[in-house]
Amino acid sequence: MEAPSADTPRQRSGGRGRARMPGGGDAAPRTQPRLAYSPTEAVSADALEAIHQASLTVLEEIGIDFLHNGAKEILRTAGADVAVGSNRVRFDRGLVESQLGKAPEQFTLHARNPARSVEIGGNYIAFCSVASAPNAADRDGGRRSGNRADYQSFVKLGQMLEAVHAWGGYPVEPIDIHASIRHLDALFDVLTLSDKPIHAYSLGRGRNLDAIEMTRIARGVDDATLDREPSVFTVINSSSPLRIDTPMLEGIIQMARRNQPVVMTPFTLAGAMAPVSIAGALAQQNAEALAGLVLTQLVRPGAPFVYGGFTSNVDMKSGAPAFGTPEYMKAALIGGQLARRYRVPYRSSNANAANTVDAQAAYESVFSLWGAIMGGTNLLMHGAGWMEGGLHASFEKMALDADLLGMVAEFLRPVVVNDAELALDAIREVGPGGHFFGAAHTMARYRNAFYAPMISDWRNYETWNEAGRPDAYDAANRLYKKTLAAYEPPPMDPARLEELTAFVARRKAEGGVPTDF
Amino acid sequence: MEAPSADTPRQRSGGRGRARMPGGGDAAPRTQPRLAYSPTEAVSADALEAIHQASLTVLEEIGIDFLHNGAKEILRTAGADVAVGSNRVRFDRGLVESQLGKAPEQFTLHARNPARSVEIGGNYIAFCSVASAPNAADRDGGRRSGNRADYQSFVKLGQMLEAVHAWGGYPVEPIDIHASIRHLDALFDVLTLSDKPIHAYSLGRGRNLDAIEMTRIARGVDDATLDREPSVFTVINSSSPLRIDTPMLEGIIQMARRNQPVVMTPFTLAGAMAPVSIAGALAQQNAEALAGLVLTQLVRPGAPFVYGGFTSNVDMKSGAPAFGTPEYMKAALIGGQLARRYRVPYRSSNANAANTVDAQAAYESVFSLWGAIMGGTNLLMHGAGWMEGGLHASFEKMALDADLLGMVAEFLRPVVVNDAELALDAIREVGPGGHFFGAAHTMARYRNAFYAPMISDWRNYETWNEAGRPDAYDAANRLYKKTLAAYEPPPMDPARLEELTAFVARRKAEGGVPTDF
Repeated sequence: MEAPSADTPRQRSGGRGRARMPGGGDAAPRTQPRLAYSPTEAVSADALEAIHQASLTVLEEIGIDFLHNGAKEILRTAGADVAVGSNRVRFDRGLVESQLGKAPEQFTLHARNPARSVEIGGNYIAFCSVASAPNAADRDGGRRSGNRADYQSFVKLGQMLEAVHAWGGYPVEPIDIHASIRHLDALFDVLTLSDKPIHAYSLGRGRNLDAIEMTRIARGVDDATLDREPSVFTVINSSSPLRIDTPMLEGIIQMARRNQPVVMTPFTLAGAMAPVSIAGALAQQNAEALAGLVLTQLVRPGAPFVYGGFTSNVDMKSGAPAFGTPEYMKAALIGGQLARRYRVPYRSSNANAANTVDAQAAYESVFSLWGAIMGGTNLLMHGAGWMEGGLHASFEKMALDADLLGMVAEFLRPVVVNDAELALDAIREVGPGGHFFGAAHTMARYRNAFYAPMISDWRNYETWNEAGRPDAYDAANRLYKKTLAAYEPPPMDPARLEELTAFVARRKAEGGVPTDF
Repeated sequence: MEAPSADTPRQRSGGRGRARMPGGGDAAPRTQPRLAYSPTEAVSADALEAIHQASLTVLEEIGIDFLHNGAKEILRTAGADVAVGSNRVRFDRGLVESQLGKAPEQFTLHARNPARSVEIGGNYIAFCSVASAPNAADRDGGRRSGNRADYQSFVKLGQMLEAVHAWGGYPVEPIDIHASIRHLDALFDVLTLSDKPIHAYSLGRGRNLDAIEMTRIARGVDDATLDREPSVFTVINSSSPLRIDTPMLEGIIQMARRNQPVVMTPFTLAGAMAPVSIAGALAQQNAEALAGLVLTQLVRPGAPFVYGGFTSNVDMKSGAPAFGTPEYMKAALIGGQLARRYRVPYRSSNANAANTVDAQAAYESVFSLWGAIMGGTNLLMHGAGWMEGGLHASFEKMALDADLLGMVAEFLRPVVVNDAELALDAIREVGPGGHFFGAAHTMARYRNAFYAPMISDWRNYETWNEAGRPDAYDAANRLYKKTLAAYEPPPMDPARLEELTAFVARRKAEGGVPTDF
């Protein structure tokens, strides 16, 4: 076990302005939105404190099962109560409180192309692609098991879509690649077909270490630079209630050790893996998230950590998970309040449980976005392409979501109020009873005045009817194909490509990683 | 011209609690939601003041055309600058400021069934049906011109849907009824087939007076009671830019005189009838809304007035109106800030420009709702059934919107945080690695723990696939038919029904109203 380094600098980008990177690039791409509005607070400060205190009671009295001896040893050394011969770890309040305030409020997640790096934290928002779906779907080919061809197509599509800022994992699981080497091929693909920031799954130490090394090679930096610059993040899910499994804990240790971001997301579906009440589900979510935060900071004080909220409800008639529900929205708002209390970035998701790209898919997604965005989300997982509660990634939904995210970004762009925008001269020019189509003020601005959606069909009914009554699913089908057809691979330094190719070949020759994690 | 009465009591319901009515009813139905969260402020206080000041400059220097001699006389008497031989009215700042603060912040809109009365203002939200569509549509019958049969079906459907609190006008225009008597039949239908609060169109004095009298009869109250109790509201649209037409001004005068609510809604589509910049469109919206507010308060100080915001943008390629856009959302937020500045209730809309009930219809609607709700809307027009930028009312969309509005209402229901809801005992009972399905805490709550949607299909993919892959449009089609089939007319006192029937018969015998307004 590597001892945590007390003098690890806290990773900060320098406040609210855009972070300048050593290479001179602008860390926040032009398209990365920021929440200039106040986040919505769904509960009072007192109620928030009650949730916090309840979660501390859970950690202190009930505890969390840590299925990893190394993790338990780190926690025991720090003063946690680790029951002998058991996985149960109890945290006293003082231990938890002592680890708060160490993780950065904001950090840069570096891409291999510096122009694609994103800010995580503050009031920045980064949109990630759908991740981890076992199935892929489009309307022409139907729903099928995940495979490398679809995986590559999703990566190409996401690379092309400006609203997709980062990868949150594999858009679809390429299960036709053997599990021992899947991460090598899949990471090679995402690091060569795309130049946006990436994610590494925590499914055993070998995969984490390979991902970190491949990221380092793709960026063309040395180990010390990588240790300073978060460049690959991992999502850690607890096995709610109150358990964190071996590979997840190994992932926290390996990633935090290298100063790579840990996004701790309890899987607290109210009524199933968490209490049926939203307050209870959030108390449990918070306990599990804090357990991850404490371990991360003990491994490396100041390692970047993101508070993940995924609390939703289930359909109490069937037990089916539900997303984009009113309960989901409220939990998303309160999750943001908790993350702000701990001064760490916040992760939420663009989720829905629809089986097809219909009105339900859209309203559950936009309700999710409402909760996530107004909750102050910094990292939006599953931003584009998620369907069916995560069971399939949809090409059409990825295109449609890119449009929704574009609209959200425009919604977040502050309204400018100055003399030119107040347009008194234009109002004088036109006067009562006129129109503004030809006004000088209009002519000077109309091309870029408004967000131009990719999907929305605003033709009049008659024209639309004559065109065969296409719906948004049709438009999304056309859009994704057109976008994919226009794909061009981002440039990559030949030396880096060669080194990456050689690394993958060597690791494959070595047999990849064990699959019995 | 009736002189405004200086001692007209300001209509207030008594603060934030539910208003008790003289009849003992509870003015706010159980389903009427409230915004317990802070509204989102999209611009700073300084920027808001700049918009306010710009609108005062518009009123003072450019002025508004008032196409009504009586209205001009009222304004001239109050000190406005009315150009001789012209319709142009210019308001100095002092005149405008002198009329602010007179209209009530909140009032009860009375229904003929006291249990259906709604609060307008404060943090209450009332959802209205779609209104004023020239066409009706459902999937089976397609899109057709508005007619009385469809009109009655919409009234029955809206009556059955709990999420529809009030009528904002005719859901669809029954154009098969002659214009001279259409209002008599249409109001008779809505006052007998429904017991929810109603709206009267301002299309000539006769129609306003008939609507007020029919409302009085249906409520079974005397004139003095009606004058105390707002019971029928009118939406006044300016003919932007900067013009208010004759029947609209007549409507303000007739309705305000009887203390009935005026909802003043400028039709400021940025780039067409208003500047292409959002700040400019809002400055113009605000000027037109303030002009209506001033006239209303001069007619009767303290008459209920609602600030309407409808600013959206057009598609600058085609000139087609767009709704539920990012620009719409921002305008909705800032409109709410302006209404709160003037301490009057705020009206916005659930709008979309889709031709069919697809993902676009849903995302534009939910984006509209996001802007409206977080903007602090008190009166949501077109809440259920609006399609195609208002050109058709859809039965399926009314059903789907009722579900969306139900979700919004649940989202707005505050999360309770107390020991029982924090559920520490349940978390203890279940412990790490368990599940909550059978926990006592779950069993005691699961039936009503979560909002149960009417449309959302949460079946697993295989079951859904075997069921024929129904989408939300299918579900909405089934839901609206099932709901309509279950319609039962609300009870009505036979004496009131007889009086109402006789009134309609008499007014028809008299020839109705002139149609050359």
